[in-house]
Amino acid sequence: MRVLGVDPGLTRCGIGVVEGGRGRQVQLVAVGVVRTPPSEPTPHRLVYLQDELERWLDRYQPEAIALEQVFADVNVASVMTTAHASAVTMLSAQRRGIPVTLHTPTSVKAAVTGSGRAEKPQVTAMVTRILRMSAAPKPADAADALALAICHLWQGAAANRLADAARTEQARLKAVSR
Amino acid sequence: MRVLGVDPGLTRCGIGVVEGGRGRQVQLVAVGVVRTPPSEPTPHRLVYLQDELERWLDRYQPEAIALEQVFADVNVASVMTTAHASAVTMLSAQRRGIPVTLHTPTSVKAAVTGSGRAEKPQVTAMVTRILRMSAAPKPADAADALALAICHLWQGAAANRLADAARTEQARLKAVSR
Repeated sequence: MRVLGVDPGLTRCGIGVVEGGRGRQVQLVAVGVVRTPPSEPTPHRLVYLQDELERWLDRYQPEAIALEQVFADVNVASVMTTAHASAVTMLSAQRRGIPVTLHTPTSVKAAVTGSGRAEKPQVTAMVTRILRMSAAPKPADAADALALAICHLWQGAAANRLADAARTEQARLKAVSR
Repeated sequence: MRVLGVDPGLTRCGIGVVEGGRGRQVQLVAVGVVRTPPSEPTPHRLVYLQDELERWLDRYQPEAIALEQVFADVNVASVMTTAHASAVTMLSAQRRGIPVTLHTPTSVKAAVTGSGRAEKPQVTAMVTRILRMSAAPKPADAADALALAICHLWQGAAANRLADAARTEQARLKAVSR
Protein backbone atom coordinates (compact mmCIF):
# COMPACT_ATOMS: atom_id res chain seq x y z
CA MET A 1 0.00 0.00 0.00
CA ARG A 2 1.42 3.35 -1.07
CA VAL A 3 0.21 6.48 0.71
CA LEU A 4 0.84 10.10 -0.22
CA GLY A 5 0.71 12.43 2.77
CA VAL A 6 -0.07 16.11 2.30
CA ASP A 7 0.65 18.84 4.85
CA PRO A 8 -1.47 21.50 3.14
CA GLY A 9 -0.20 25.04 2.62
CA LEU A 10 0.29 27.54 -0.16
CA THR A 11 3.64 29.00 0.83
CA ARG A 12 4.92 25.50 1.61
CA CYS A 13 2.94 22.32 0.93
CA GLY A 14 4.68 19.23 2.30
CA ILE A 15 4.34 16.01 0.29
CA GLY A 16 5.59 12.62 1.40
CA VAL A 17 5.13 9.19 -0.13
CA VAL A 18 5.49 6.10 2.08
CA GLU A 19 4.90 2.42 1.44
CA GLY A 20 3.84 -0.14 4.02
CA GLY A 21 2.28 -3.54 4.43
CA ARG A 22 0.33 -5.24 7.18
CA GLY A 23 3.01 -4.69 9.82
CA ARG A 24 4.82 -1.66 11.26
CA GLN A 25 7.53 -1.74 8.57
CA VAL A 26 7.30 1.33 6.31
CA GLN A 27 9.57 2.54 3.51
CA LEU A 28 10.26 6.05 2.28
CA VAL A 29 9.43 6.46 -1.41
CA ALA A 30 9.78 10.23 -1.89
CA VAL A 31 9.50 13.49 -0.01
CA GLY A 32 9.40 17.13 -1.04
CA VAL A 33 7.78 20.52 -0.71
CA VAL A 34 5.81 22.58 -3.21
CA ARG A 35 6.35 26.29 -2.68
CA THR A 36 4.34 29.12 -4.23
CA PRO A 37 5.36 32.78 -3.84
CA PRO A 38 3.10 34.79 -1.46
CA SER A 39 3.51 37.76 -3.82
CA GLU A 40 1.51 35.98 -6.55
CA PRO A 41 -2.31 36.22 -6.68
CA THR A 42 -4.02 33.30 -4.94
CA PRO A 43 -5.65 31.88 -8.13
CA HIS A 44 -2.17 31.58 -9.74
CA ARG A 45 -0.82 29.89 -6.62
CA LEU A 46 -3.68 27.38 -6.53
CA VAL A 47 -3.21 26.38 -10.16
CA TYR A 48 0.55 26.03 -9.66
CA LEU A 49 0.04 23.88 -6.56
CA GLN A 50 -2.50 21.68 -8.34
CA ASP A 51 -0.21 21.22 -11.35
CA GLU A 52 2.68 20.21 -9.09
CA LEU A 53 0.48 17.88 -7.03
CA GLU A 54 -0.78 16.24 -10.23
CA ARG A 55 2.85 15.53 -11.16
CA TRP A 56 3.37 13.78 -7.82
CA LEU A 57 0.20 11.73 -8.35
CA ASP A 58 1.25 10.81 -11.91
CA ARG A 59 4.73 9.80 -10.83
CA TYR A 60 4.00 7.92 -7.61
CA GLN A 61 0.46 6.59 -8.20
CA PRO A 62 -0.55 6.44 -4.52
CA GLU A 63 -3.49 4.24 -3.51
CA ALA A 64 -4.54 6.61 -0.73
CA ILE A 65 -4.01 10.21 0.31
CA ALA A 66 -3.59 11.26 3.95
CA LEU A 67 -4.39 14.94 4.39
CA GLU A 68 -4.00 16.99 7.54
CA GLN A 69 -7.33 18.14 8.92
CA VAL A 70 -7.21 21.89 9.40
CA PHE A 71 -9.12 23.55 12.20
CA ALA A 72 -10.41 27.06 11.87
CA ASP A 73 -9.43 28.05 15.39
CA VAL A 74 -5.69 27.40 15.14
CA ASN A 75 -3.41 29.95 13.49
CA VAL A 76 -6.12 32.21 12.07
CA ALA A 77 -3.68 34.06 9.82
CA SER A 78 -2.81 31.07 7.66
CA VAL A 79 -6.02 29.05 7.97
CA MET A 80 -7.53 30.39 4.73
CA THR A 81 -4.57 29.48 2.53
CA THR A 82 -4.31 26.11 4.27
CA ALA A 83 -7.99 25.47 3.54
CA HIS A 84 -7.40 26.49 -0.10
CA ALA A 85 -4.52 24.01 -0.41
CA SER A 86 -6.66 21.27 1.18
CA ALA A 87 -9.41 21.91 -1.36
CA VAL A 88 -6.91 21.62 -4.24
CA THR A 89 -5.70 18.28 -2.85
CA MET A 90 -9.21 16.91 -2.34
CA LEU A 91 -10.30 17.96 -5.86
CA SER A 92 -7.32 16.30 -7.55
CA ALA A 93 -7.65 13.14 -5.49
CA GLN A 94 -11.40 12.83 -6.02
CA ARG A 95 -11.08 13.37 -9.78
CA ARG A 96 -8.67 10.39 -9.88
CA GLY A 97 -10.79 8.26 -7.56
CA ILE A 98 -8.08 8.15 -4.88
CA PRO A 99 -9.59 8.00 -1.36
CA VAL A 100 -8.66 10.94 0.87
CA THR A 101 -8.56 10.51 4.64
CA LEU A 102 -8.26 13.46 6.98
CA HIS A 103 -6.07 13.03 10.05
CA THR A 104 -5.94 15.52 12.90
CA PRO A 105 -2.52 16.89 13.92
CA THR A 106 -3.04 15.28 17.34
CA SER A 107 -3.64 11.78 15.97
CA VAL A 108 -0.62 12.07 13.64
CA LYS A 109 1.66 13.17 16.49
CA ALA A 110 0.30 10.41 18.71
CA ALA A 111 0.86 7.81 15.99
CA VAL A 112 4.54 8.60 15.42
CA THR A 113 5.69 9.85 18.87
CA GLY A 114 3.20 8.31 21.30
CA SER A 115 2.06 11.77 22.41
CA GLY A 116 -0.59 13.94 20.77
CA ARG A 117 1.11 17.00 22.22
CA ALA A 118 4.59 16.31 20.83
CA GLU A 119 6.55 19.26 19.43
CA LYS A 120 7.57 19.50 15.76
CA PRO A 121 11.27 18.52 16.34
CA GLN A 122 10.13 15.33 18.08
CA VAL A 123 7.85 14.45 15.14
CA THR A 124 10.72 15.06 12.70
CA ALA A 125 13.10 12.95 14.82
CA MET A 126 10.68 10.04 14.95
CA VAL A 127 9.89 10.21 11.20
CA THR A 128 13.65 10.17 10.47
CA ARG A 129 14.10 7.10 12.69
CA ILE A 130 10.98 5.21 11.49
CA LEU A 131 11.94 5.65 7.83
CA ARG A 132 15.66 4.99 8.55
CA MET A 133 16.65 8.25 6.83
CA SER A 134 20.28 9.36 7.03
CA ALA A 135 19.24 12.99 7.57
CA ALA A 136 16.09 14.65 8.94
CA PRO A 137 13.61 15.68 6.21
CA LYS A 138 13.42 19.46 5.85
CA PRO A 139 11.48 21.70 6.12
CA ALA A 140 9.11 20.59 8.92
CA ASP A 141 6.23 20.49 6.39
CA ALA A 142 7.98 17.64 4.55
CA ALA A 143 8.43 15.70 7.80
CA ASP A 144 4.76 16.33 8.67
CA ALA A 145 3.65 14.96 5.29
CA LEU A 146 5.64 11.78 5.93
CA ALA A 147 4.19 11.53 9.45
CA LEU A 148 0.68 11.77 7.93
CA ALA A 149 1.42 8.92 5.52
CA ILE A 150 2.94 6.77 8.31
CA CYS A 151 -0.06 7.47 10.57
CA HIS A 152 -2.42 6.44 7.78
CA LEU A 153 -0.52 3.21 7.05
CA TRP A 154 -0.34 2.23 10.71
CA GLN A 155 -4.01 2.91 11.34
CA GLY A 156 -4.85 0.77 8.32
CA ALA A 157 -2.45 -1.99 9.42
CA ALA A 158 -3.91 -1.99 12.94
CA ALA A 159 -7.45 -2.23 11.51
CA ASN A 160 -6.35 -5.12 9.30
CA ARG A 161 -4.73 -6.96 12.23
CA LEU A 162 -7.93 -6.53 14.25
CA ALA A 163 -10.00 -7.88 11.35
CA ASP A 164 -7.57 -10.82 10.98
CA ALA A 165 -7.80 -11.56 14.70
CA ALA A 166 -11.59 -11.44 14.55
CA ARG A 167 -11.65 -13.85 11.59
CA THR A 168 -9.24 -16.24 13.32
CA GLU A 169 -11.35 -16.19 16.50
CA GLN A 170 -14.55 -16.83 14.52
CA ALA A 171 -12.92 -19.76 12.72
CA ARG A 172 -11.74 -21.16 16.10
CA LEU A 173 -15.23 -20.83 17.62
CA LYS A 174 -16.77 -22.51 14.57
CA ALA A 175 -14.27 -25.39 14.84
CA VAL A 176 -14.99 -25.74 18.59
CA SER A 177 -18.78 -25.72 18.10
CA ARG A 178 -18.68 -28.45 15.49
CA MET B 1 -19.01 43.58 -19.53
CA ARG B 2 -20.46 40.42 -18.05
CA VAL B 3 -19.59 39.54 -14.45
CA LEU B 4 -20.27 36.32 -12.58
CA GLY B 5 -20.56 36.82 -8.84
CA VAL B 6 -19.90 33.95 -6.45
CA ASP B 7 -21.00 33.83 -2.81
CA PRO B 8 -18.86 30.84 -1.89
CA GLY B 9 -20.20 27.96 0.15
CA LEU B 10 -20.52 24.18 -0.05
CA THR B 11 -24.03 23.73 1.34
CA ARG B 12 -25.22 26.67 -0.76
CA CYS B 13 -23.05 28.50 -3.29
CA GLY B 14 -24.76 31.58 -4.73
CA ILE B 15 -24.06 32.38 -8.38
CA GLY B 16 -25.28 35.52 -10.16
CA VAL B 17 -24.50 36.84 -13.62
CA VAL B 18 -24.95 40.56 -14.32
CA GLU B 19 -24.13 42.71 -17.33
CA GLY B 20 -23.21 46.37 -17.24
CA GLY B 21 -21.57 49.10 -19.22
CA ARG B 22 -19.84 52.36 -18.34
CA GLY B 23 -22.80 53.74 -16.38
CA ARG B 24 -24.85 52.57 -13.41
CA GLN B 25 -27.27 50.59 -15.62
CA VAL B 26 -26.97 46.86 -14.96
CA GLN B 27 -28.99 43.90 -16.28
CA LEU B 28 -29.71 40.55 -14.71
CA VAL B 29 -28.52 37.66 -16.88
CA ALA B 30 -28.98 34.66 -14.58
CA VAL B 31 -29.05 33.72 -10.93
CA GLY B 32 -29.01 30.45 -9.03
CA VAL B 33 -27.60 28.38 -6.22
CA VAL B 34 -25.48 25.24 -6.29
CA ARG B 35 -26.21 23.00 -3.32
CA THR B 36 -24.19 20.01 -2.17
CA PRO B 37 -25.39 17.68 0.61
CA PRO B 38 -23.50 18.06 3.93
CA SER B 39 -23.80 14.29 4.37
CA GLU B 40 -21.46 13.68 1.41
CA PRO B 41 -17.66 13.57 1.91
CA THR B 42 -15.99 16.94 1.20
CA PRO B 43 -13.98 15.73 -1.85
CA HIS B 44 -17.24 14.65 -3.55
CA ARG B 45 -18.85 17.99 -2.74
CA LEU B 46 -15.91 19.94 -4.16
CA VAL B 47 -15.95 18.02 -7.44
CA TYR B 48 -19.72 18.47 -7.74
CA LEU B 49 -19.45 22.20 -7.07
CA GLN B 50 -16.64 22.58 -9.60
CA ASP B 51 -18.58 20.66 -12.27
CA GLU B 52 -21.65 22.85 -11.73
CA LEU B 53 -19.57 26.04 -11.73
CA GLU B 54 -17.91 24.96 -14.97
CA ARG B 55 -21.39 24.64 -16.51
CA TRP B 56 -22.18 28.23 -15.51
CA LEU B 57 -18.88 29.42 -17.00
CA ASP B 58 -19.50 27.48 -20.23
CA ARG B 59 -23.02 28.80 -20.57
CA TYR B 60 -22.57 32.45 -19.61
CA GLN B 61 -18.92 33.10 -20.58
CA PRO B 62 -18.29 35.87 -18.03
CA GLU B 63 -15.38 38.27 -18.58
CA ALA B 64 -14.72 38.62 -14.87
CA ILE B 65 -15.51 36.83 -11.63
CA ALA B 66 -16.35 38.66 -8.41
CA LEU B 67 -15.77 36.45 -5.38
CA GLU B 68 -16.57 37.25 -1.79
CA GLN B 69 -13.47 37.55 0.34
CA VAL B 70 -13.81 35.30 3.33
CA PHE B 71 -12.26 36.20 6.64
CA ALA B 72 -11.10 33.57 9.07
CA ASP B 73 -12.51 35.35 12.11
CA VAL B 74 -16.17 35.44 11.06
CA ASN B 75 -18.38 32.39 11.51
CA VAL B 76 -15.65 29.93 12.46
CA ALA B 77 -17.88 26.89 11.95
CA SER B 78 -18.40 27.43 8.22
CA VAL B 79 -15.18 29.21 7.33
CA MET B 80 -13.40 26.05 6.20
CA THR B 81 -16.05 24.97 3.71
CA THR B 82 -16.36 28.55 2.49
CA ALA B 83 -12.61 28.64 1.91
CA HIS B 84 -12.84 25.32 0.06
CA ALA B 85 -15.57 26.70 -2.23
CA SER B 86 -13.49 29.84 -2.86
CA ALA B 87 -10.52 27.71 -3.87
CA VAL B 88 -12.68 25.75 -6.33
CA THR B 89 -13.88 29.01 -7.89
CA MET B 90 -10.38 30.49 -8.15
CA LEU B 91 -9.00 27.30 -9.71
CA SER B 92 -11.71 27.11 -12.37
CA ALA B 93 -11.44 30.82 -13.17
CA GLN B 94 -7.65 30.83 -13.36
CA ARG B 95 -7.59 27.75 -15.63
CA ARG B 96 -9.86 29.64 -18.06
CA GLY B 97 -7.89 32.88 -17.76
CA ILE B 98 -10.85 34.75 -16.27
CA PRO B 99 -9.70 37.41 -13.78
CA VAL B 100 -10.99 36.92 -10.23
CA THR B 101 -11.45 39.90 -7.94
CA LEU B 102 -12.11 39.49 -4.23
CA HIS B 103 -14.60 41.88 -2.65
CA THR B 104 -15.12 42.19 1.09
CA PRO B 105 -18.69 41.81 2.42
CA THR B 106 -18.45 45.39 3.70
CA SER B 107 -17.57 46.88 0.31
CA VAL B 108 -20.35 44.89 -1.39
CA LYS B 109 -22.95 46.05 1.13
CA ALA B 110 -21.70 49.64 0.84
CA ALA B 111 -21.86 49.48 -2.97
CA VAL B 112 -25.50 48.38 -3.17
CA THR B 113 -27.03 49.88 -0.02
CA GLY B 114 -24.74 52.80 0.84
CA SER B 115 -23.89 51.23 4.20
CA GLY B 116 -21.16 48.66 4.89
CA ARG B 117 -23.15 47.47 7.89
CA ALA B 118 -26.44 46.81 6.07
CA GLU B 119 -28.37 43.66 7.00
CA LYS B 120 -29.03 40.85 4.50
CA PRO B 121 -32.71 41.78 3.82
CA GLN B 122 -31.62 45.31 2.87
CA VAL B 123 -29.01 43.94 0.43
CA THR B 124 -31.65 41.64 -1.11
CA ALA B 125 -34.14 44.53 -1.39
CA MET B 126 -31.62 46.79 -3.14
CA VAL B 127 -30.46 44.03 -5.52
CA THR B 128 -34.11 43.38 -6.46
CA ARG B 129 -34.65 47.09 -7.15
CA ILE B 130 -31.35 47.67 -9.00
CA LEU B 131 -31.94 44.72 -11.33
CA ARG B 132 -35.69 45.55 -11.68
CA MET B 133 -36.62 41.99 -10.64
CA SER B 134 -40.30 41.20 -10.10
CA ALA B 135 -39.48 39.08 -7.04
CA ALA B 136 -36.59 39.02 -4.60
CA PRO B 137 -33.89 36.48 -5.50
CA LYS B 138 -33.83 33.57 -3.04
CA PRO B 139 -32.03 32.30 -1.05
CA ALA B 140 -29.92 35.15 0.37
CA ASP B 141 -26.80 33.54 -1.16
CA ALA B 142 -28.22 34.14 -4.65
CA ALA B 143 -28.90 37.81 -3.84
CA ASP B 144 -25.39 38.13 -2.39
CA ALA B 145 -23.88 36.74 -5.58
CA LEU B 146 -25.78 39.34 -7.62
CA ALA B 147 -24.67 42.07 -5.21
CA LEU B 148 -21.06 40.98 -5.73
CA ALA B 149 -21.40 41.23 -9.50
CA ILE B 150 -23.09 44.66 -9.26
CA CYS B 151 -20.38 45.90 -6.87
CA HIS B 152 -17.70 44.73 -9.29
CA LEU B 153 -19.35 46.38 -12.31
CA TRP B 154 -19.88 49.68 -10.49
CA GLN B 155 -16.31 49.79 -9.17
CA GLY B 156 -15.08 49.17 -12.71
CA ALA B 157 -17.45 51.78 -14.17
CA ALA B 158 -16.34 54.34 -11.57
CA ALA B 159 -12.68 53.61 -12.34
CA ASN B 160 -13.40 54.01 -16.07
CA ARG B 161 -15.19 57.32 -15.52
CA LEU B 162 -12.24 58.57 -13.46
CA ALA B 163 -9.83 57.49 -16.20
CA ASP B 164 -12.04 59.21 -18.83
CA ALA B 165 -12.14 62.39 -16.73
CA ALA B 166 -8.34 62.31 -16.34
CA ARG B 167 -7.88 61.87 -20.11
CA THR B 168 -10.32 64.74 -20.88
CA GLU B 169 -8.52 66.97 -18.39
CA GLN B 170 -5.12 66.10 -19.87
CA ALA B 171 -6.39 66.85 -23.39
CA ARG B 172 -7.80 70.19 -22.17
CA LEU B 173 -4.50 71.11 -20.49
CA LYS B 174 -2.59 70.19 -23.67
CA ALA B 175 -4.93 72.33 -25.77
CA VAL B 176 -4.56 75.27 -23.36
CA SER B 177 -0.76 75.01 -23.24
CA ARG B 178 -0.42 75.05 -27.06
